Amino acid sequence: MSGNSFGKLFTVTTFGESHGPALGCIVDGCPPGIELSEADLQQDLDRRKPGTSRHTTQRREPDQVRILSGVFEGKTTGTAIGLLIENTDQRSKDYSNIAETFRPAHADYVYTHKYGFRDYRGGGRSSARETAMRVAAGGIAKKFLEAKGIQVRGYLSQLGPVAINNENFDWDQIDQNPFFSPDAAAVSEMETYMDALRKEGNSVGAKISVVAQGVPVGLGEPIFDRIDADLAHALMSINAVKGVEIGDGFDVVSQKGTEHRDEMFPDGFGSNHAGGILGGITTGQDVVAHIALKPTSSLRLPGQSIDVHGNPIEVVTKGRHDPCVGIRATPIAEAMMAIVLMDHYLRNRAQNADVDCATPII
Amino acid sequence: MSGNSFGKLFTVTTFGESHGPALGCIVDGCPPGIELSEADLQQDLDRRKPGTSRHTTQRREPDQVRILSGVFEGKTTGTAIGLLIENTDQRSKDYSNIAETFRPAHADYVYTHKYGFRDYRGGGRSSARETAMRVAAGGIAKKFLEAKGIQVRGYLSQLGPVAINNENFDWDQIDQNPFFSPDAAAVSEMETYMDALRKEGNSVGAKISVVAQGVPVGLGEPIFDRIDADLAHALMSINAVKGVEIGDGFDVVSQKGTEHRDEMFPDGFGSNHAGGILGGITTGQDVVAHIALKPTSSLRLPGQSIDVHGNPIEVVTKGRHDPCVGIRATPIAEAMMAIVLMDHYLRNRAQNADVDCATPII
Amino acid sequence: MSGNSFGKLFTVTTFGESHGPALGCIVDGCPPGIELSEADLQQDLDRRKPGTSRHTTQRREPDQVRILSGVFEGKTTGTAIGLLIENTDQRSKDYSNIAETFRPAHADYVYTHKYGFRDYRGGGRSSARETAMRVAAGGIAKKFLEAKGIQVRGYLSQLGPVAINNENFDWDQIDQNPFFSPDAAAVSEMETYMDALRKEGNSVGAKISVVAQGVPVGLGEPIFDRIDADLAHALMSINAVKGVEIGDGFDVVSQKGTEHRDEMFPDGFGSNHAGGILGGITTGQDVVAHIALKPTSSLRLPGQSIDVHGNPIEVVTKGRHDPCVGIRATPIAEAMMAIVLMDHYLRNRAQNADVDCATPII
Amino acid sequence: MSGNSFGKLFTVTTFGESHGPALGCIVDGCPPGIELSEADLQQDLDRRKPGTSRHTTQRREPDQVRILSGVFEGKTTGTAIGLLIENTDQRSKDYSNIAETFRPAHADYVYTHKYGFRDYRGGGRSSARETAMRVAAGGIAKKFLEAKGIQVRGYLSQLGPVAINNENFDWDQIDQNPFFSPDAAAVSEMETYMDALRKEGNSVGAKISVVAQGVPVGLGEPIFDRIDADLAHALMSINAVKGVEIGDGFDVVSQKGTEHRDEMFPDGFGSNHAGGILGGITTGQDVVAHIALKPTSSLRLPGQSIDVHGNPIEVVTKGRHDPCVGIRATPIAEAMMAIVLMDHYLRNRAQNADVDCATPII
Repeated sequence: MSGNSFGKLFTVTTFGESHGPALGCIVDGCPPGIELSEADLQQDLDRRKPGTSRHTTQRREPDQVRILSGVFEGKTTGTAIGLLIENTDQRSKDYSNIAETFRPAHADYVYTHKYGFRDYRGGGRSSARETAMRVAAGGIAKKFLEAKGIQVRGYLSQLGPVAINNENFDWDQIDQNPFFSPDAAAVSEMETYMDALRKEGNSVGAKISVVAQGVPVGLGEPIFDRIDADLAHALMSINAVKGVEIGDGFDVVSQKGTEHRDEMFPDGFGSNHAGGILGGITTGQDVVAHIALKPTSSLRLPGQSIDVHGNPIEVVTKGRHDPCVGIRATPIAEAMMAIVLMDHYLRNRAQNADVDCATPII
Repeated sequence: MSGNSFGKLFTVTTFGESHGPALGCIVDGCPPGIELSEADLQQDLDRRKPGTSRHTTQRREPDQVRILSGVFEGKTTGTAIGLLIENTDQRSKDYSNIAETFRPAHADYVYTHKYGFRDYRGGGRSSARETAMRVAAGGIAKKFLEAKGIQVRGYLSQLGPVAINNENFDWDQIDQNPFFSPDAAAVSEMETYMDALRKEGNSVGAKISVVAQGVPVGLGEPIFDRIDADLAHALMSINAVKGVEIGDGFDVVSQKGTEHRDEMFPDGFGSNHAGGILGGITTGQDVVAHIALKPTSSLRLPGQSIDVHGNPIEVVTKGRHDPCVGIRATPIAEAMMAIVLMDHYLRNRAQNADVDCATPII
Repeated sequence: MSGNSFGKLFTVTTFGESHGPALGCIVDGCPPGIELSEADLQQDLDRRKPGTSRHTTQRREPDQVRILSGVFEGKTTGTAIGLLIENTDQRSKDYSNIAETFRPAHADYVYTHKYGFRDYRGGGRSSARETAMRVAAGGIAKKFLEAKGIQVRGYLSQLGPVAINNENFDWDQIDQNPFFSPDAAAVSEMETYMDALRKEGNSVGAKISVVAQGVPVGLGEPIFDRIDADLAHALMSINAVKGVEIGDGFDVVSQKGTEHRDEMFPDGFGSNHAGGILGGITTGQDVVAHIALKPTSSLRLPGQSIDVHGNPIEVVTKGRHDPCVGIRATPIAEAMMAIVLMDHYLRNRAQNADVDCATPII
Repeated sequence: MSGNSFGKLFTVTTFGESHGPALGCIVDGCPPGIELSEADLQQDLDRRKPGTSRHTTQRREPDQVRILSGVFEGKTTGTAIGLLIENTDQRSKDYSNIAETFRPAHADYVYTHKYGFRDYRGGGRSSARETAMRVAAGGIAKKFLEAKGIQVRGYLSQLGPVAINNENFDWDQIDQNPFFSPDAAAVSEMETYMDALRKEGNSVGAKISVVAQGVPVGLGEPIFDRIDADLAHALMSINAVKGVEIGDGFDVVSQKGTEHRDEMFPDGFGSNHAGGILGGITTGQDVVAHIALKPTSSLRLPGQSIDVHGNPIEVVTKGRHDPCVGIRATPIAEAMMAIVLMDHYLRNRAQNADVDCATPII
């Protein structure tokens, strides 16, 4: 496969370009009998959609999703679920000027050499607009997981230099501000930073965290399909992501064994440095992952580049862009983690439905 | 699949437990006509094998690999390659005492709940011993890539608190010391640190870096099978890995767009913050990845845990263990990157063999 | 995956029910630079679509396909191709009466037990209407193959008791009659037979043959992905198919080795009993397959069955149905063979692009 | 993947050549806790192994299988099961004479052009010797299925011109004669036919049937992974198979709907023309499949062919061969059906474990 599918038993396959007529996806492997409506999916799509604050791109897309199959009388049928979102606000003219140029840090150059030519309208298939379908598909996974008592939530843990203060952490704050920040106190600082950044015409990176609660012991397969390996795959596949951490992540480099190991007691684990995963399998603790997103490449500030003929040029990107792609990435990261968890939930019961373990779960 | 396979076109499937009769793997999808001998694979197996210095486990395993199929008259035939390594130094008695206990930070607890019981001999399938087969399979990928002018090499960039100094970086040093350190000056400090650590009975984490040179433009598929996503999957699937970075990794969080973007000039890129990957596709620059490995969980220092009946116990792990699993991880990380690159090399030519790009490659 | 995808490198994933709003599919893995328009795909869709003669269902569906992605400026981009066909003539009322009954020889009973309930509108996902998307996807494969000199064509070889006479075989006749018969002389007999059958309210089976010409030597993989095995999978997955033959098929049971073996001469093979495939790999001869399609299950003639409560009932199927589903199956069988050939064409060049064989091809 | 794997959740991957040091396979996805010993697998291996009667090849292979992983204290652990069979009786000299020739109806010619050269020892990877590993893997599936009340058995239904008489059908006879014939009365006729054939130096085809009993309703996925499509794939992938039928197979071509449809009654189906599969999903009736195997290509009777330089030659195959490969195919066909059923059993419970159907099963 050419890589437009993800998941072994719960499989999401997407299509669509930034400026084509529509985006779509097929969700294959969803169990039957799950109550599902377009409204269920719209919720997260609205959290991701552009133009909800001055800090994101001003492109106006309602991102209204339609369910075209796989749902009958309000319930999933167990057959393929087709989803469609029409593109409404393309403004191709914004992009015509870059048809013959390679923007630094964009996929323009690699797409051109890989495929011989490229759809230059808004980045074509390389645009993060594709992630709308991941959010829609992830909504289905969230519905399934919630019925199993599993909740997946994400938040912005750092915006450029502005990190949240964990002492102020409050899940309820996340959807109360345009940054998905769980720290209400950090929001005004983020506002100020972003306003200055926008004036400057520059962009900045961000760090997003995702947490799954209520995960049972035993999800994930040894060796190559460890659930942390699949999470790394899923999260690194999000546009602009350059790093993935599970639990303590890169802090483990300087940790000693006595410091890192999560001791076990009859009433549970004493800590969660492992991020809820040991040997690639969930421990029953919260599954915790962090991702690093690079700054948007499309800048008003001129940069050196070349055109398709190899001539040096100076690139200034006009059009409408997110000064920090990380801001809108929270629902996308949640969706990818939900898809991985659901896929492994199904895989685990395929193989281990008959398992009856005498050992008490802590 | 239950996750013992990796790779879509160049597929590696492994089997074997730490203390079973043998480890093995099947390499499927290797092109025909490649000169291949057991000696080619033994080279990296010897770099990974235990007991080569006082800083790794004293278990003695020659890790002698046998090619059982897929090679005829010294050349690969294009059919499945079967590889086998017999286990020689098991010493099961070392482990008998932990049959009924869960060691903190080990997979004991999750395996028991996932499968109903577990092979407690040396960690069974969860042991890093399995990675010997990845190194063998990676050796085949390296052979193929070398013929295409692609070289994959790794090194230790940090051992616990001791980081290398990039000003002393020298590829030739890596195999001259027991740590795979490219910084000769850092070695004595590492020796001292490890000797103290061993006396203390503790363990420590490490950071490994892997670099591929000579990679052509265009490897990797958009969306879910981005080559960075597959690298993240492959590297996170290595035992003890808790974090993966591509290029600048988590540094991008606080970088501005002007700082991060790699400008392009007629004679090439001006920098490589992206780690040789844009939009999930190789740029032709060096592909750079870093991984964080947690400290070994098996310690002589007592830790709180529970037994299979849920009773509190104090665990002291005897037997032979690596005080820093990161040390031997360098050849494993190289192998996984080589497997990913070869897989995408084949995938790319499947889809794009007819592509003729008019644009000059910088 | 739950089975809505087919193909390893050229992957087709479909969605949609008989009476849902639309049918769709995603074609993943199509090489870039192939000229492709909706008209290219409409051609075969029109050959398959209902209501083109009195011998097929009178449901009126234009089956107008839209390309939603993956094509830019008239050429495939190498990214996912999204296809959509809106359903226009559903008439759900025709089916309301069977919501609580199981029709003999239909999937009603198995869907209900597998999924707990079913979309009873026109058979939902089990309807052969889904095959419209296969034909559309197959059209893309045909375009690719034609550029490589490979042509895939099918025909009706037997309709109930009426077999074609191979002495009258003429490829040009196939699209000149409503039966895809290559034997013009047999058409009037088929007309008469079908008219009587329709009056009787009964249905009948059929045999379809598919031939690929211009296939190079070497397509197909040994062992499980033999190209004949993939063809058998692809063809048996077509609604109503109960048998698949390659070359001489079941005639080989009573053949002797001297009779069956295709002798080889410097200027080529002396015969083609093997149907162009040896050891699961193409020989360069015509690839020949035959399939058997069962009679339509929906009949006006009453049959014994049960309702969802297990009570005995008599079923009479009203609504609009094909008295011989085999008639419209020819373009579907062509599409499936084209998809298999394209998939293996890509797989073969992925692994064997470097192969340079000194041996002359006969 | 290059096709050495089969099955999505219960995955079998094999390696090994006719005259290499060993054959092996990895069985991935087997649930834990199943009692499994080498003796369990040896049973069917002994039914398939050569040299058990004068009617099969006189090559002497004990086909002793070793379990190298995935089983601990007599039970499967849920991890990869590694199996190995050493080749003992190679006699490579028998084949040296054909290194430069292409035997008619063999894979010699296609392997050479696909891969550039070939392992000519006993057919290398194209030898049916590979199927020994399928039988071993199938033995694991049979063990799992038996615990679920599912039994898979095969038999020879026709040997060349000699068909069995169903009135004499007796399951208990099958292992009482060298042909796997359920009709004791036909055995002497088969003996006579085979003796004459062997004298003549010729070979003949055969028809094998496989039946699964106790199969629950609901195994199989709609669309491409219909269980009949997977069975067709699995059975057609067996060496020498040229045709696959489900239920009535090619007889359906001339059947009318009223004749073919299996009517349903409160106490069950009235017939089983469908072979236990509707819409690609099991009905709860016996699953019935038939395969056609071509005559062995290796004959003592001279045939026209070419050498690797394209020169005309006359080929006489010496060495030891089965005059009817069909005879030993029965356990292989059983193994492949068992693997497909187990794979779909696991897939079905992954997706539908929560399904609770109110409708009574007939």
